[in-house]
Amino acid sequence: MPEILDIQQLAEAGKLTIAIIGGTGDLGSGLAKAWSRSGHRIVIGSRSPERAAELVQGLGNAQALSYAQAAAQGDVIVLAVPFGSHEQALDEIREGAEGKIVIDAVVPLVPPRVATVQLPAEGSAAQIAQRILGPESRVASAFHNVGASKLHLGERVDCDVLVFSDDKEARDVVIKLASQVASRGVDGGPLANSAAAEALTSVLIGLNRRYKVSAAGIHITGLDGDSTDRRDLKK
Amino acid sequence: MPEILDIQQLAEAGKLTIAIIGGTGDLGSGLAKAWSRSGHRIVIGSRSPERAAELVQGLGNAQALSYAQAAAQGDVIVLAVPFGSHEQALDEIREGAEGKIVIDAVVPLVPPRVATVQLPAEGSAAQIAQRILGPESRVASAFHNVGASKLHLGERVDCDVLVFSDDKEARDVVIKLASQVASRGVDGGPLANSAAAEALTSVLIGLNRRYKVSAAGIHITGLDGDSTDRRDLKK
Repeated sequence: MPEILDIQQLAEAGKLTIAIIGGTGDLGSGLAKAWSRSGHRIVIGSRSPERAAELVQGLGNAQALSYAQAAAQGDVIVLAVPFGSHEQALDEIREGAEGKIVIDAVVPLVPPRVATVQLPAEGSAAQIAQRILGPESRVASAFHNVGASKLHLGERVDCDVLVFSDDKEARDVVIKLASQVASRGVDGGPLANSAAAEALTSVLIGLNRRYKVSAAGIHITGLDGDSTDRRDLKK
Repeated sequence: MPEILDIQQLAEAGKLTIAIIGGTGDLGSGLAKAWSRSGHRIVIGSRSPERAAELVQGLGNAQALSYAQAAAQGDVIVLAVPFGSHEQALDEIREGAEGKIVIDAVVPLVPPRVATVQLPAEGSAAQIAQRILGPESRVASAFHNVGASKLHLGERVDCDVLVFSDDKEARDVVIKLASQVASRGVDGGPLANSAAAEALTSVLIGLNRRYKVSAAGIHITGLDGDSTDRRDLKK
């Protein structure tokens, strides 16, 4: 009899179907490549069928669909659209996202001043996602501070990924997925705390300009072990 | 003839008078000890004359005064009061702070849920400070993520200090002061970006609990040099 794996085990084993909404964007396609290398099946939700087809061809075990169809296919859904498309994308995936972990990676940047923190009145993009998707979805947020360039080069990103959710198991799943693309996932607590990582993105964009670098990131100091997720260490 | 130093040179040389408002608190007294070791003259602004007198005795070149008197004495003023006393303290120091660099280190924690981000409607404590002090003061913000315990032990804190201000020279002065107490100061951009570091404090408090550590902090990765302030490296 085949062993039945729970969602945390599937995440760790690289056996999830991950729907990436906005999957042809810079971050979305970078995450798609990284998780594809970890073995996951990727479903790209896109409004650009040609770019999506091209991306999917390079990934192997992957397909390209509409936002709604991709969400319906995913075990886990990742939202990586520009902030200007955030609410509409959430509306479109709502039905397909019921009962699922939805990882909001959207940063509330307000062009042209993207290096200035301008958080939404609701507190954070993640809290907007929870309002629109409702309590049926297990909303998490993460990957705000991950520069996509290294993902496209096939490297892990030298940046800790702060993971937020009011759902503890969702945080644990996302922490495992984060450790496959970046230094490690770190349990940042409740969804309301997403404001910290979302705001930090504008700071990092500004640091890239002022310090003339391309991929400023963050590392959390003072955690036990200090190079990987504690929960992984305990095994 | 004695050389006349500008405020950046005084900061670097340890020759400022630094007024610390709320200077008997955990962070305030930790900063007082650290900057005193760097040679600065410390003026403690306090509502606890006995604790202030005791602290000042251990510092050497220091004195204890009221908030308003301390502000009037300082070349630079540091605000390290609880968020609940923030607005009143700002009112009291306003006159003494005119024309000066005021470093707001106040984090908008709302007890009892201090590990949950609850930013004020105005965006950040720093923006509240700028509104109350007006354009006559050069408001900066910093030291939100610095755990005071190491300062009390006489050690530098293993944490980068994000520094925010709309006044570039104020940022440069605070970056120099930060490098005397912690890993380094990092130029975080405009005052509005203070929301990122203020929010991060609640995340770090939560990390200390969840990971059972005492001094979670942050390090900015990907900056040139990566162990000290770039501006220092250029010399």
